[in-house]
Amino acid sequence: MAALLRSMFMKNRSLWQPSFCAVRAMSTSGGPTPPFSTLSVSHPASAVTHVELHRPEKRNAMNRAFWSEMVDCFSQIALDSECRVVVVSGAGKIFTAGIDLMDMAGDVLQPQGDDVARMSWNMRRVIAKYQETFSVIEKCPKPVVVAVHGACVGGGVDLITACDIRLCTQDAWFQVKEVDIGLAADVGTLQRLPKVIGSRSLVNELALTARKMYSDEAKSCGLVSRVFSDKEAMMAGALELAGEIAARSPVAVQGTKINLLYSRDHSVPEALDYMATWNMSMLQTQDVVKSAQAAMEKKSPKEVPFSKL
Amino acid sequence: MAALLRSMFMKNRSLWQPSFCAVRAMSTSGGPTPPFSTLSVSHPASAVTHVELHRPEKRNAMNRAFWSEMVDCFSQIALDSECRVVVVSGAGKIFTAGIDLMDMAGDVLQPQGDDVARMSWNMRRVIAKYQETFSVIEKCPKPVVVAVHGACVGGGVDLITACDIRLCTQDAWFQVKEVDIGLAADVGTLQRLPKVIGSRSLVNELALTARKMYSDEAKSCGLVSRVFSDKEAMMAGALELAGEIAARSPVAVQGTKINLLYSRDHSVPEALDYMATWNMSMLQTQDVVKSAQAAMEKKSPKEVPFSKL
Amino acid sequence: MAALLRSMFMKNRSLWQPSFCAVRAMSTSGGPTPPFSTLSVSHPASAVTHVELHRPEKRNAMNRAFWSEMVDCFSQIALDSECRVVVVSGAGKIFTAGIDLMDMAGDVLQPQGDDVARMSWNMRRVIAKYQETFSVIEKCPKPVVVAVHGACVGGGVDLITACDIRLCTQDAWFQVKEVDIGLAADVGTLQRLPKVIGSRSLVNELALTARKMYSDEAKSCGLVSRVFSDKEAMMAGALELAGEIAARSPVAVQGTKINLLYSRDHSVPEALDYMATWNMSMLQTQDVVKSAQAAMEKKSPKEVPFSKL
Amino acid sequence: MAALLRSMFMKNRSLWQPSFCAVRAMSTSGGPTPPFSTLSVSHPASAVTHVELHRPEKRNAMNRAFWSEMVDCFSQIALDSECRVVVVSGAGKIFTAGIDLMDMAGDVLQPQGDDVARMSWNMRRVIAKYQETFSVIEKCPKPVVVAVHGACVGGGVDLITACDIRLCTQDAWFQVKEVDIGLAADVGTLQRLPKVIGSRSLVNELALTARKMYSDEAKSCGLVSRVFSDKEAMMAGALELAGEIAARSPVAVQGTKINLLYSRDHSVPEALDYMATWNMSMLQTQDVVKSAQAAMEKKSPKEVPFSKL
Amino acid sequence: MAALLRSMFMKNRSLWQPSFCAVRAMSTSGGPTPPFSTLSVSHPASAVTHVELHRPEKRNAMNRAFWSEMVDCFSQIALDSECRVVVVSGAGKIFTAGIDLMDMAGDVLQPQGDDVARMSWNMRRVIAKYQETFSVIEKCPKPVVVAVHGACVGGGVDLITACDIRLCTQDAWFQVKEVDIGLAADVGTLQRLPKVIGSRSLVNELALTARKMYSDEAKSCGLVSRVFSDKEAMMAGALELAGEIAARSPVAVQGTKINLLYSRDHSVPEALDYMATWNMSMLQTQDVVKSAQAAMEKKSPKEVPFSKL
Amino acid sequence: MAALLRSMFMKNRSLWQPSFCAVRAMSTSGGPTPPFSTLSVSHPASAVTHVELHRPEKRNAMNRAFWSEMVDCFSQIALDSECRVVVVSGAGKIFTAGIDLMDMAGDVLQPQGDDVARMSWNMRRVIAKYQETFSVIEKCPKPVVVAVHGACVGGGVDLITACDIRLCTQDAWFQVKEVDIGLAADVGTLQRLPKVIGSRSLVNELALTARKMYSDEAKSCGLVSRVFSDKEAMMAGALELAGEIAARSPVAVQGTKINLLYSRDHSVPEALDYMATWNMSMLQTQDVVKSAQAAMEKKSPKEVPFSKL
Repeated sequence: MAALLRSMFMKNRSLWQPSFCAVRAMSTSGGPTPPFSTLSVSHPASAVTHVELHRPEKRNAMNRAFWSEMVDCFSQIALDSECRVVVVSGAGKIFTAGIDLMDMAGDVLQPQGDDVARMSWNMRRVIAKYQETFSVIEKCPKPVVVAVHGACVGGGVDLITACDIRLCTQDAWFQVKEVDIGLAADVGTLQRLPKVIGSRSLVNELALTARKMYSDEAKSCGLVSRVFSDKEAMMAGALELAGEIAARSPVAVQGTKINLLYSRDHSVPEALDYMATWNMSMLQTQDVVKSAQAAMEKKSPKEVPFSKL
Repeated sequence: MAALLRSMFMKNRSLWQPSFCAVRAMSTSGGPTPPFSTLSVSHPASAVTHVELHRPEKRNAMNRAFWSEMVDCFSQIALDSECRVVVVSGAGKIFTAGIDLMDMAGDVLQPQGDDVARMSWNMRRVIAKYQETFSVIEKCPKPVVVAVHGACVGGGVDLITACDIRLCTQDAWFQVKEVDIGLAADVGTLQRLPKVIGSRSLVNELALTARKMYSDEAKSCGLVSRVFSDKEAMMAGALELAGEIAARSPVAVQGTKINLLYSRDHSVPEALDYMATWNMSMLQTQDVVKSAQAAMEKKSPKEVPFSKL
Repeated sequence: MAALLRSMFMKNRSLWQPSFCAVRAMSTSGGPTPPFSTLSVSHPASAVTHVELHRPEKRNAMNRAFWSEMVDCFSQIALDSECRVVVVSGAGKIFTAGIDLMDMAGDVLQPQGDDVARMSWNMRRVIAKYQETFSVIEKCPKPVVVAVHGACVGGGVDLITACDIRLCTQDAWFQVKEVDIGLAADVGTLQRLPKVIGSRSLVNELALTARKMYSDEAKSCGLVSRVFSDKEAMMAGALELAGEIAARSPVAVQGTKINLLYSRDHSVPEALDYMATWNMSMLQTQDVVKSAQAAMEKKSPKEVPFSKL
Repeated sequence: MAALLRSMFMKNRSLWQPSFCAVRAMSTSGGPTPPFSTLSVSHPASAVTHVELHRPEKRNAMNRAFWSEMVDCFSQIALDSECRVVVVSGAGKIFTAGIDLMDMAGDVLQPQGDDVARMSWNMRRVIAKYQETFSVIEKCPKPVVVAVHGACVGGGVDLITACDIRLCTQDAWFQVKEVDIGLAADVGTLQRLPKVIGSRSLVNELALTARKMYSDEAKSCGLVSRVFSDKEAMMAGALELAGEIAARSPVAVQGTKINLLYSRDHSVPEALDYMATWNMSMLQTQDVVKSAQAAMEKKSPKEVPFSKL
Repeated sequence: MAALLRSMFMKNRSLWQPSFCAVRAMSTSGGPTPPFSTLSVSHPASAVTHVELHRPEKRNAMNRAFWSEMVDCFSQIALDSECRVVVVSGAGKIFTAGIDLMDMAGDVLQPQGDDVARMSWNMRRVIAKYQETFSVIEKCPKPVVVAVHGACVGGGVDLITACDIRLCTQDAWFQVKEVDIGLAADVGTLQRLPKVIGSRSLVNELALTARKMYSDEAKSCGLVSRVFSDKEAMMAGALELAGEIAARSPVAVQGTKINLLYSRDHSVPEALDYMATWNMSMLQTQDVVKSAQAAMEKKSPKEVPFSKL
Repeated sequence: MAALLRSMFMKNRSLWQPSFCAVRAMSTSGGPTPPFSTLSVSHPASAVTHVELHRPEKRNAMNRAFWSEMVDCFSQIALDSECRVVVVSGAGKIFTAGIDLMDMAGDVLQPQGDDVARMSWNMRRVIAKYQETFSVIEKCPKPVVVAVHGACVGGGVDLITACDIRLCTQDAWFQVKEVDIGLAADVGTLQRLPKVIGSRSLVNELALTARKMYSDEAKSCGLVSRVFSDKEAMMAGALELAGEIAARSPVAVQGTKINLLYSRDHSVPEALDYMATWNMSMLQTQDVVKSAQAAMEKKSPKEVPFSKL
């Protein structure tokens, strides 16, 4: 899977070059960062990329543009050797209201095709495309920290369960909304949520009733690992956390992400074998020597100059 | 697995017709509902089926009749298009004391056969039959909410871990009892409990020592998602929860259950592929349009008339 | 896997005989138990084996000797029919400071071989050898309770996640340290930690930032199932817990461990099938009859004389 | 899977009793054996059951009755301890013309349900039911030898790939017909054929073009293991082969079938582990001693009186 | 996997539009078809696309351009609803001499990166990219027939094992060449060849010695399903075969390919479940009715006008 | 699995040193090579190790000593960097008569233990130990060519299916004997034979009837890849084949074996991912450059001096 993604990046590298440069030049602004219309990308600190859902006037609802921009954005980040960690958050009053049904209705409600089989065939393609929008987060080898404030509804839950670390504010709430609009959630929630939190009873209850879950329950069930008083505090915390990750060896950090995901989907003996095969070369990095030396000299990892990856 | 079950239902449909009609006509009563001797089946609300373990004088201990009646009961429910959600609870003072050793001893303690191999062969059949008693709960596509009060011992834990949502009263306690009678739990607890709660250390401790776990620990570890003050409050809560589920599109609800179970047993990429293949037709349901319209008109799902499934 | 291990034990049985006898004769002492230089092995109670990490002056850092002694020690224990449960703890001020980088640097920092491929080949062998050091704990069919006080760093987390039940003191803390020395943890933590606790967000945070986790968070996330005020109380608690396990049928207890591990790595239907095939013979044990009889006579399992296994 | 099946058999044992007795009393006749209308069941030799597709005037086309009678028939055989091996063949001029489209059209061409989702839901049930018709052959622990003469079309290929040993006459031909009627074969051929023969290119060609394959190619690609000059010779050969199998220990024979099927669907290490767990009890059979003794006394297995299984 | 690919196609649809149109307009010519420099794409018959490796002066050696053009070409074909089947062959004297080492040496022999870990990281990306070149053939839902004449060396074997049906001429030979240049074949041969032919001993011999295999052995081991006297006869045969496939319902044909590939990588019960979920909608196609009607009217599938897919 | 093995080798290295030296000093002789009593080990050519089953007077029947000597022998070979390929054959008139029932009867016929559970427990250990005897062949990364003359019975088939390449003489025959002595073959045949040859019908027939298969059928079904007129010709052929393998880069050859085995037990996408992770370091070997250069200079691989592995 990871292999596939990487080749995908490679084969179109020339096509990406222009926008790729654009990304590196981005600065935090009040609106979306071209060529994106729904995302704002900035670099708040060294080696940290901040991706902000940016349709605040629409409560960051996920429209057609969003679904493809996410893929482009994370494909670029995956290849950007300047970036070591990503923070995702939402602009405006809430994280996201989920799918923008008005904009997407054509795809979801009016499948194309001459008969049921052909409509199903096309529908399957569309679903697979939407699944990819969040799977790119997992395939990007850089860790992704997501910071949620206010509402995180429907597609928002699909998005955050594909991220690596989840933070939220006191006023945040989460809702697996799909059952309310007559469908089984099909872009990741049903697949990832049960592997993200430890109570199966709660997962089932959330998915079958679409009830809201507030920040305290999200913390106690393990959906988020930290709750902050407000958005400002959370963003500061997210950046500090991102800074900690960015300071460490990218060989260690990205190898850790790849192997944690591998472990989720394989047995322990298989995952140990994969790990040994992974590290047989990765341990030959200079980063081990540099890190060990820094440790002996009581230096912080932040003082160690690791090569790019 | 699911496919197998369904075919099982279909092929004997004619045989079931009589008892099937009986089920639909059942009313809540003070005793078991014929043709069952250990279960009482009723319909406390529209589209909600209530299955009550009903041998209160024997602390709902699981005798020979129980093991086969559960299969018959849930096989009927799976096919009953009037039913959209199931509530399971226990009559009398406790949920269940577990296996009725006196009644079952013949099966467990006196295996049939001319030599060890043949006794083992027959024993394997018996175990598989007993495993099926709880697997039918999972194979039934309608969500099953279980409400536990008082003791839930041995086979009771096997039963509740096969249900979708677990509730309990303040005075409830749970005990993986099998190790105390010299055997490894073989009808589901060792297989499902680790996938139901998030602490492996706790799972092992419970299964290896047979110690009791009380409601507060059951809540904090995620075995149950809610604790109620007493049985009356719990049953009200269970019915309200069941009502919420029953009000939603059965296409959405039952597709959610089937895909959540699929996700438990497969990798994320495999589960996403299955989900897309599932929804390529299921999204063509009228329920999406009806639900979307209701949402826009600020109506509750309960006001939407979904077709039977 | 289990099969492989067992054959490993068997084929060299004669080689082990001498040290094996030594183990049975061990008494609790102030230092390591010969032939071990880093472990102290004793028998604090009937059927209970206590393995103590014993390099207190070096904070129980894991040196070359440790990595192979653990394999020898647990291989013996696996075959020792007198032993029914194991307790692991650390001598001195802390549980363990993790890998002894000074002693191990040769293996990790100076891979052997004429080119990158050959160095990688040898590195893979070394990693696999180290992985085995903790996998033996899992392959040993007797349950292993680990009791942690003070620090549990790096390799210590790899070790405890391979144990069955985790306890700790109020002052204990845990640190997935590897990312700080430039590498992805490769001897078990990334493979087992996500299957041991219920919050994926927390697992990722710990592994990617190397931050310390204290006992209260370890308890609430399910890493440990109990926290004790101090080491003395914990050791008493660990021995009591071990006593509970040791009192029960070894056929039941060891079958439970083997099937719980099988369940972790397989789907529910596969695990049910394996369980039925396991118990088709194991239920024919005398222990079921003895236990059932004791239960009826209101005797404690501790009064039942089970045969050795 | 196997476990599920067995429990299925067990739970309805009382229902089967009457027809079960009927089966044992069956004699070879010129027509179907009651209560079957499409199958003729007989006992041509000790411990050998012969199941004949018996609608010769309809070229043994598979009508509604056939699909459910096969399940009943093999469910009984699975429980019949007198039977140790099964031979399947077709009455009349050919083995089978496949599905009886006229009789089945209602199921396949007119799915029930109020919308696409509900029609799909019901269609899935129907397909699963039909899949079960051939899966019962695999779940029956007694080996099944199939003898094909003349045409074996469509559903016929689904049927024979679920059998254990395939024989045919010189004039036999095989056709994966489904693509010709606008559908992907969904009751077993696409799942089992690639695991039955060794040339993937041939499998694809047959399934994508619906071309006929004659007996010589069927032999060289390994679909059948023997070709006979005519039906009479083949039936004699099939019965001789069945006699060889029936003469051997049923513990050995049925354990072999179950483990060969397990191996098909699992990795080698997993299958070895399952095998060891299976044989830990099965090797304690008296059949090993009896067989070993017979071997030493140069007796044929046919002279050894094995207990029933 | 399939889901991923499809989404890949979708998300860049606008980028492809120009070249896509180009493809439809292509005619058979003496050279590569723009925008390709190594492939010639034509439409020899209705619904049949012919992809010719076209660097005859270089023995169709696979240079940098080839590896990415294959991905573009098959991505377009996958989306081209006019195309129902693909034929692949080689221009000039042989099918292909395999990788063009001169052109590719930079990628393979000079990995980029500051240390071994970084060079390995980049090398993994490169390998994954090359693997994708042949995986696109599998992900394209239209069946791919490959016709081999003369030599098929190294990368050529990787290519043909990813195709669905393999044909060759009398003078064809095959060579798994990689071991001769010091590496384990890493773009598909070691993964697919064992699942393509039935003799493991032969697979190992070919891969470990790099010996040539000629057409007769290729036929008898099942690598190819037909051998033709010369290239002209083979191309005629390939087109006839392609015509047979193109004439049938694309819903049936492409569903067959997708499910045959699914079966290769899953157990039989899993593949049956997937198949039922697939066909629950696909059987609702008009193609079944059209095909059934044609069959009853004794018409050839070629006379049935199926809608595009 | 591979990881486990390697660690096994490592941890006892000091114990092996003496016998290990012995192995390197071995010369071909008329009897077993100390410290072995059933095996003769020699070095007929550079980098080629010849292991001969050497109890000709007992038809190379597998006695207690054999089962453990095989493990020791292949464990040494796995670590012997002088060895690049292994040839296995049998001394005397036949390859092997299989298990030496007289010598082994104690293990198989008289299980130890106080009750059925304990006897089963010990039996499982014994089976697992015996399985390991042949699994070591697979875990040894050097390819193993086996050359069979005369009879290859029972355990012999278990042995050869764990080898990589199979050769035989015209007079060779093979027999899956276990069913004749009342048991399901449990040390590898049922697990590996179906993945070694392409006809499932034949596998089942052989395993269920214990009939002999002669060399011509063994060749046509793919069990062996070549048949020789007599033993002398076969041994010459085997050594030539071994020489071809030994001449090639050990990095390429051993990586090929490891990945071919991985592919057998995993899906294609998983195996491709593992392969990319394997080769990301292995391609950095000097062997690629040396081999490429030799190829350009038209030199044979035999002239290239590869470093040891």
